[in-house]
This record gives sequence, C-alpha cells and structure tokens, in this order.
Amino acid sequence: MSSYRPFSLEDATAYAKSIPGFFAADAALSCEEIGDGNLNLVFRVADPQQNKSLIIKQALPYAKVVGESWPLSLDRARIERNALEIQHRLCPDLVPAIYGGDDELAITVMEDLSGYTIMRQGLIAGNTYDRFAEHIGRFIATTLFYTSDLGMNQQEKKLQSARFINPDLCKITEDLIFEDPYRDAANNSFTEDIRAEAEKLWQDHALHLEVALLREKFLTQGQALLHGDLHTGSIFITPESTKVIDPEFAYYGPIGFDIGAVIANLLLNYAAQPGWSSNDEVLQERRSWLLTTIVGVWNHFELNFRKFWDADGIDIMSKTPGYQDLYIDQIRKDAIGFAGCKVIRRIVGLSHVADIDTIDDELSRRQAKVTALEIGKRLIKGSRSAASIAEVIEWAKAAAAKEGANV
Amino acid sequence: MSSYRPFSLEDATAYAKSIPGFFAADAALSCEEIGDGNLNLVFRVADPQQNKSLIIKQALPYAKVVGESWPLSLDRARIERNALEIQHRLCPDLVPAIYGGDDELAITVMEDLSGYTIMRQGLIAGNTYDRFAEHIGRFIATTLFYTSDLGMNQQEKKLQSARFINPDLCKITEDLIFEDPYRDAANNSFTEDIRAEAEKLWQDHALHLEVALLREKFLTQGQALLHGDLHTGSIFITPESTKVIDPEFAYYGPIGFDIGAVIANLLLNYAAQPGWSSNDEVLQERRSWLLTTIVGVWNHFELNFRKFWDADGIDIMSKTPGYQDLYIDQIRKDAIGFAGCKVIRRIVGLSHVADIDTIDDELSRRQAKVTALEIGKRLIKGSRSAASIAEVIEWAKAAAAKEGANV
Repeated sequence: MSSYRPFSLEDATAYAKSIPGFFAADAALSCEEIGDGNLNLVFRVADPQQNKSLIIKQALPYAKVVGESWPLSLDRARIERNALEIQHRLCPDLVPAIYGGDDELAITVMEDLSGYTIMRQGLIAGNTYDRFAEHIGRFIATTLFYTSDLGMNQQEKKLQSARFINPDLCKITEDLIFEDPYRDAANNSFTEDIRAEAEKLWQDHALHLEVALLREKFLTQGQALLHGDLHTGSIFITPESTKVIDPEFAYYGPIGFDIGAVIANLLLNYAAQPGWSSNDEVLQERRSWLLTTIVGVWNHFELNFRKFWDADGIDIMSKTPGYQDLYIDQIRKDAIGFAGCKVIRRIVGLSHVADIDTIDDELSRRQAKVTALEIGKRLIKGSRSAASIAEVIEWAKAAAAKEGANV
Repeated sequence: MSSYRPFSLEDATAYAKSIPGFFAADAALSCEEIGDGNLNLVFRVADPQQNKSLIIKQALPYAKVVGESWPLSLDRARIERNALEIQHRLCPDLVPAIYGGDDELAITVMEDLSGYTIMRQGLIAGNTYDRFAEHIGRFIATTLFYTSDLGMNQQEKKLQSARFINPDLCKITEDLIFEDPYRDAANNSFTEDIRAEAEKLWQDHALHLEVALLREKFLTQGQALLHGDLHTGSIFITPESTKVIDPEFAYYGPIGFDIGAVIANLLLNYAAQPGWSSNDEVLQERRSWLLTTIVGVWNHFELNFRKFWDADGIDIMSKTPGYQDLYIDQIRKDAIGFAGCKVIRRIVGLSHVADIDTIDDELSRRQAKVTALEIGKRLIKGSRSAASIAEVIEWAKAAAAKEGANV
C-alpha cells in the first residue's frame, strides 16, 4: 500500500477516508488537485454536506520547473511534516494543524486553509494586512528561539539537527540564491532589457565578497531550525489571521535567513509599485505600509526573541551582559544581507515573483526590476555595517528614487 | 558475540586473532592493558616472536574521572573510528592505520605506535620536535579543508555531518571549557593558592562576553570535521614522525578550535617553564622554541590551507578575490580565542595538564598557573582584534614577564 506513487484523485480520497475520526465513513467526498505542481501535488478533499475538508500534500520526485530532469528527494515530505509539527506546537495559531502523513508516500495531511489568500496574491491585489508584522515576527522569533541552543536542550538540538539534514533542498538555495545570479549560469532567467544590469552583477567583486560571506553562513551556521523558504507564497493570510506553510526547505541554518526572506518579499512588492515620480496618495500610502511593515516584522521579531531569551534562556553563558545585544545585532546584519540576495535572485535567477512579472506595462516592469536590483545590491553591500533596520528603509527609498529619476 | 561488555585481556587477545591476515593462527600472543583508563580501555596485543603488534581501543560507558556517574555514549567509538579512517585517508603519514573495529563492542583496532612518545610527556621531558609544526599544521589544514564546504561536495558534507553528531562528547567541551571555569561550578578543580584568581574569572564580564561568543561558534558553526580534542596528549611523536590519535570528540565545528587546542597546549608548557627572571640560556632557548613552534603551527596551517583552496577549492563563490583572506583572518581570531579558553580550563577546570601539575616546587607551580591564566585571559580578550599570530607571542611573553616580576 505505501510504496511511492503519485496520487490520483481516487488515491487521495481513499487516503483521506483512512484518517481516523475526520470524515464520516459514509461521507460523499469531493477531491480536486489545487497545487501549482512545481514540486508537489496538493489535493483538497471535502465533505460538502458536513462542511469539512482537509489538504493532502504529496511531494513529487522531481522539480517540474525545469522539467523532470531535476530530481528531488522525497525525504523532503518527512522534513516538511516534522517541521510543521514543531512549528505548530510552538505557534498553534500561526501554522496549520497536521492530521497525519506517510514518509514512503511522501504525503502530509493537514488543515484546509480555503478561507485564506496566498499573501503574495493579496499583496498584488493591493490588500494590506495590519496584523501580519506581529504574526510573522512572533512566528520567526518563537520557532527559531525554541529550536536554537538558546532555547532548547543543546544535546537534543544536535540530534534534531541531524533529522533535518536536507541536502537536496539546500542545494537549490545554494545554487539559485548564492551562486547563479553572480555568474553567467545556465539556470539564470531574465529579460533582455535588463541584460546590462545582470552582467554588472557578474562583474561586481565587492558584491561577490559579501555574497560569499552570506553563502558561508548558509552552509555552516546551524543556529536554529529555519523554515527555509519564507516568502509571501508560503504564507496564507486574512486580515485577522496568518498561517505559515510549506517548510520543505527546513534545516538548521542562520536565523537571519528567515527574516531576510520576509523582508525581501515585501521589498519586491515595494519595487513593483508603479509611478515613483507620481504623487498619488494611494500609492504613497501603499509604499509607506510596505516599509512600515518591514520595520514592524523586525521589531516584533526582536521584541519576542529578547523576551524569550530573558524568560526561557537555557544557556548560562548567554546571560552575559552585552551578549544578547551583539547576537541580535548580528542577526539584523545577516537578515539584511540575506534579504538582498533574495531580492536579486528573483530578478535574474531561475525563479521569479508574480509581484513583478505580472506588471502589464513593459517599461514599468523593467523599472521595477532595476529598482529591485538596486535595492538588493544596497542591502548586500550595506549588511555588515548596518546598525538598524531603518537603514533598509532608507536604502529602499533611495533606490526607488534613483530609478524613478532615471525614467 | 558482539553485544557490549568491557574486554578482558583474553577477550582482546581473541579479538586480535580474528583480524584477518594480521597474526599467524598459531602465534603466541601477549596482551596488556595500557590505557590511562579515564574513558577507554587500551589493549596492546603482540606477537613478540614476529615483532608484530596492534592496539585495541574500547570505549567505556562512563567517564572514570568523575566516577561511574558520568555516563558516556558508546557511539563515540564509531565516531572515533570513522574520524580516524577519514583522517588516515587524508594524511596517511600522520594518523595510525585502522585494521578493524566493531560498533556494538565499541572497539577500534589500529596500528601500534609503541616506538612513539606521548607528546605531552616528551615536552615535559624537555624534548624539542622540529618537524612537529609542519606535521600538525599540515594535518589540521588537510583534514579540515577537505571535510569542509570548501574542499568536498557540499551535499555529501551535510550527510557526513549527520554521521558525526556527537552530543555526549560535545557536552563535555561545552561544560568544561565554555562554562564551568567562568562560574563557581561543582566540577571546577583548583588549588586554594589560586582561589583569588579563579574568583576573578567568575566576575570578569568582559571575559564572559568573549567566551559566550566562542561558545556560540562551538555550538553552531559546522565548518569542518574537527578532531575536537587536539591536545598534546592526543599526539604520538618522535623527532621524525607525528601521529594524531583519539578523535572521539570529532564533530562538525569551527576550524579554529583544533588550531587553538594545539596552541593552548604549547602555551601551557610555556607557562610551566621555570624561572622567568632567570637568564639561563637553556631555558630561554626552550621558551623560544615553544613560541616559534606556535608560529610555525599557524604558518604551516595557513600555507597548506591556502594551497588546497587555490588548487582544489570546489566552491565557485569562494574564489572571490579577498574572501580567502577574510576567511583565514577569522580562523586566526577564532583559534586565538579558543586557545585562551583551553588554557584557562586546564588551570581551574576539572581536567588539568601534567605540564603544570608535575612541577615540584609549590611556588613555581603556582606561578605557572597564574601565568597560564594571564595568557588565557589576554588571548580571549584580544581574539576579536588580533591581526596576526605574532600578537599571541607578544601576549604570552608579556604575561610571563608580568608574573615573573611579581615573584
């Protein structure tokens, strides 16, 4: 029964029925496949009469984005489910509940979030989410503090890190974020109208040096159990509620990486806002909300992380006066650098974001890309000297103003 | 047959006979237990007639140093054997050959090094080893470069790091090196004549801050497969040859830790040299040799590490101009800080070194301890700003001169 095969709708329905105590035995279930199908199948199985539903996510043994030629370990389904379970235990209101799963079939059965919007789509539609900063800042602080050497038994953390060794998915990040954008790599993907800007990236040795340092952190620094892919497509949202999904890239890495991912995706949406020279009030409010949200994400992270440290820190040496400040300062610097890397890769690398690619007007689309690249470069080059999150805001505004002036 | 029991001499002899092709079937074997018995049994099994012999090392399920109350995982025997195999493959002339082993019995069968001296004893006897710096510098550079993300496949490195998760032994280091010396811990051990100096360590918050940063690196920074316990008691030596043994503390950690261990143990012997105010030429030469050797260890490490990087570096981003210099600079800083921690713990912590404890004269012994503590503090506090290994030499000389003047 449980040797791997990609599920059909019938397989998914049958598996859903086998989950104890969820659907009635005689329920008439509907089933549809709702995934984007890049890396996974996603089935929604529902009992419309009882208004009950669940999601079955199944990993595919390859990444479709580059055809079937990019094989991916099915073990990532185990990693994702185990990460979801830990994250749900730590932040029950911010992570879907897990109902079951199977390592061999590479499936996870979880709470259906049909009432939610994928945050990227919500942002593109122009929505604002005023509780998001508090939610995601608390999610990152909680899941990372309590899986780190600061907040959990340090020997158990070592054993846990072994269970989250994730070579295939880490390699995607290492290649697509920390290497390809900085050379003429076959997997890069960009429009010809920004070729000059892409080629500048390939020759910018000062930029490469910073990227090499950030890559080293990604490769070696096992601080906490990261989500590993915390972009706005991994977040389901409503005005009142936020749910983080899809931690298949989870592994023990540098804390700044998750924070940087959130900041980067807010900045990508910021760069995608039209009309930099316009004085349109709605647009100005929009930009302002995005930048304020970035500051809020950081502040909620920092506030919670410090609170957990003071209340639940298990490491005697970590209570040394001044150490917490140094630690937080380094996370901020790392987050800024990682954010820059994640912005740049979405413009010239293999995988883009709809925030920018769906801009109708070709010139505006180009301007958004160039603005994003400028923001990314400033963040990366400024990361080691950045003293506060306010600098990110200044750099983003300056990059946007520069590109606006060039139009 | 292979469920765990501590070996008797008869068990060891029988096991040695079972190693294919080593002893003749009818050989009359002798067997003796030659370990210091803290953590392991060590049997030497020999065929005197054929002049052949081998060593069987067996892990004990507890640390005797604090009685049987400190249980230790037998899995460390597997880790030690696997580390020895990797290190022997990378540095065949510097690591004993492995003939076999058994995970359940927690034993490793290896080359007998009876013609060699334990380096610590050789140093205490006043010997010099002019090839040591080249040997150990090359050992560290080779074993660490080729197990790091710089010199081996980065996905295979992740899998390998999971095989070297080593919670029990890491905890010994975390407690005894990075925590206990800096507080009034039950496991500390020091003579009353340095109580004032020990208590100063407990109150020195500037020192604690640096130790917290070094502890963090030890906990989180998986750069390379460390030996993990590279003191002069883990090194067998002759004037011509060096063999590194006992990597049971092996795990993926910061590269500077192994270098720091070697430097610390040379500095402990340096601090143990008598008569700082004397102009005795032999003593001056001795001190000079020890300091020159420290510089040599670093220089041979750096030379080899850079050579491997240029010739065999597998990471495209690591070829970025300037990155190698930053990386080496950080290793040097780390090594200096770790060296300081390792000096201090041998004076006030649970486990001491014979270099100092065997000094006959009580006042000289006290002076050696105080000098060592002064060296350790200077190294730790100077580590983040240290720009060259020459600073270590200056700090050691200054610490010795200060204590000499106080006599």
